Amino acid sequence: MSILVVGSVAYDTVETPLGRAERVLGGSASFFAVAASFFGPVNLVGVVGRDFGEAQLAAFRGRPIDLEGLERMEGKTFHWQGRYAHDLNSRDTICTDLNVFEFFEPKIPRRYRGSEAVFLGNIDPVLQRQVLEQVERPRVVACDTMNFWIHGKPAEVRETLKRVQILLINDQEARELSGEWNLVKAARAIRAMGPRTLVVKKGEHGVLMFGDEGTFAAPALPLEVVVDPTGAGDTFAGGFLGYLASTGQEGDDALRRAVVMGSTLASFSVEAFSLDRLLTLTRGEIDARYREFEGLTRFESL
Amino acid sequence: MSILVVGSVAYDTVETPLGRAERVLGGSASFFAVAASFFGPVNLVGVVGRDFGEAQLAAFRGRPIDLEGLERMEGKTFHWQGRYAHDLNSRDTICTDLNVFEFFEPKIPRRYRGSEAVFLGNIDPVLQRQVLEQVERPRVVACDTMNFWIHGKPAEVRETLKRVQILLINDQEARELSGEWNLVKAARAIRAMGPRTLVVKKGEHGVLMFGDEGTFAAPALPLEVVVDPTGAGDTFAGGFLGYLASTGQEGDDALRRAVVMGSTLASFSVEAFSLDRLLTLTRGEIDARYREFEGLTRFESL
Repeated sequence: MSILVVGSVAYDTVETPLGRAERVLGGSASFFAVAASFFGPVNLVGVVGRDFGEAQLAAFRGRPIDLEGLERMEGKTFHWQGRYAHDLNSRDTICTDLNVFEFFEPKIPRRYRGSEAVFLGNIDPVLQRQVLEQVERPRVVACDTMNFWIHGKPAEVRETLKRVQILLINDQEARELSGEWNLVKAARAIRAMGPRTLVVKKGEHGVLMFGDEGTFAAPALPLEVVVDPTGAGDTFAGGFLGYLASTGQEGDDALRRAVVMGSTLASFSVEAFSLDRLLTLTRGEIDARYREFEGLTRFESL
Repeated sequence: MSILVVGSVAYDTVETPLGRAERVLGGSASFFAVAASFFGPVNLVGVVGRDFGEAQLAAFRGRPIDLEGLERMEGKTFHWQGRYAHDLNSRDTICTDLNVFEFFEPKIPRRYRGSEAVFLGNIDPVLQRQVLEQVERPRVVACDTMNFWIHGKPAEVRETLKRVQILLINDQEARELSGEWNLVKAARAIRAMGPRTLVVKKGEHGVLMFGDEGTFAAPALPLEVVVDPTGAGDTFAGGFLGYLASTGQEGDDALRRAVVMGSTLASFSVEAFSLDRLLTLTRGEIDARYREFEGLTRFESL
């Protein structure tokens, strides 16, 4: 079962308490694609500039990631620069150079159109719908968004959400999208907008998933060293949807395992800058860490 | 197996976004004792003033809570007044009238001295040790503390911790006690001070327990209505230690179940002001909610 992902492919310059990385590979589609590629084929749709070369593409080579949809445009690649606070829970954006990403209009190659799962990364909700209009009949549509769109294009966000089965956002976004501070109330309001399943990412505090069959809570793995949280949410989404698609299932049990798999991939991602840790990762390491989550959370009945 | 608890018995005046409660029963020993009393006998050590009457004592009557250790002193009962922010995660103390609590010197009645479990509520670490000197040979000593003592009497806190098996504190206290921001590092540092088991309470984000056999993460129950968080941590401690003592076990499996039981009791406590919800609670409701935690956290192996 193949997954189509549309989102940013970027250069990131990141400062964290543990160091600095200059113009390294980033972007939501990059993290998502590499994480999802452990479980099956990924069709990547994005745009880069002429400054994005074979060295950067190497991250995607040798994996089941199709790059026909990665457009090359005149100009420079999207560049984001940010600095994390000491606690890694907040960050300041120092600059955002959209560059070619400003003119991004997702064009879905013909052979991507039968993709069975779609992940709409955090782009303009109008573009998200344009992607859906170019695919045939995906079994699962998952989506991310952010405060910039929630406040800037609220009606368009609502329109997109009508066509989405799974929304993955962070706790603050869930509060702003719903206008409810309480996450249980927020989830009810958001699920009434369209998505049957809402996955709320809480960073170091883990994930809450609200669905037809109740609520699931998964912790994040307590880590002693977090080098760079950039991309953790997109890595989570890639592990989540990649695993889910590979099961061919859509029920609550598969969704729960997918949340843990997403958390597993994200726990690796933050151990190094950029995609560095994901690029050395093996399926054996993934499965071993999934079992660590079992050990972390298990308890007996009374 | 009986539990001795020493701590505050107080009047609380509390404002939350959902209402206000004036001079209602509060204090760490009150919440702890009622929560623990669902699992076995509790010996309460504290102090109240002449303004603390039979109406307040009614909360403890009809439960296996021994009040011989609840001293009556000339003067007024400890009174705390606070106001919670909209998000319920932070609160301002409006006033703290220590009253008789300022002169509290725990005196352990003779028939409490064989208590098999001891909970040292959040009082002066010197007084905490005086309690331990008056008991014979408890199988489990658990302890709470707070920033006021961590900063004000650091050497005394360290001295007390040498005699404690289980420390229950919140995440901010763990960071301040250890000087480490990262909770994994903080746990290692704190466990080197004495407690074999560290339970870190993270409010709505649940609990992390660090012990000899690894780490356990339990979520808080996502609640739609939280009326008053006051006493949730002490209720957690009461459910945790009350249940643990009742099992007669001390291993990792029992500690994990105890964490979930503490979380269960705390999830009820916040549903109403003061001890109101705990006072109508039944063992059947407790066991049903424990099973809700099983449903909230279960996921399958790969």
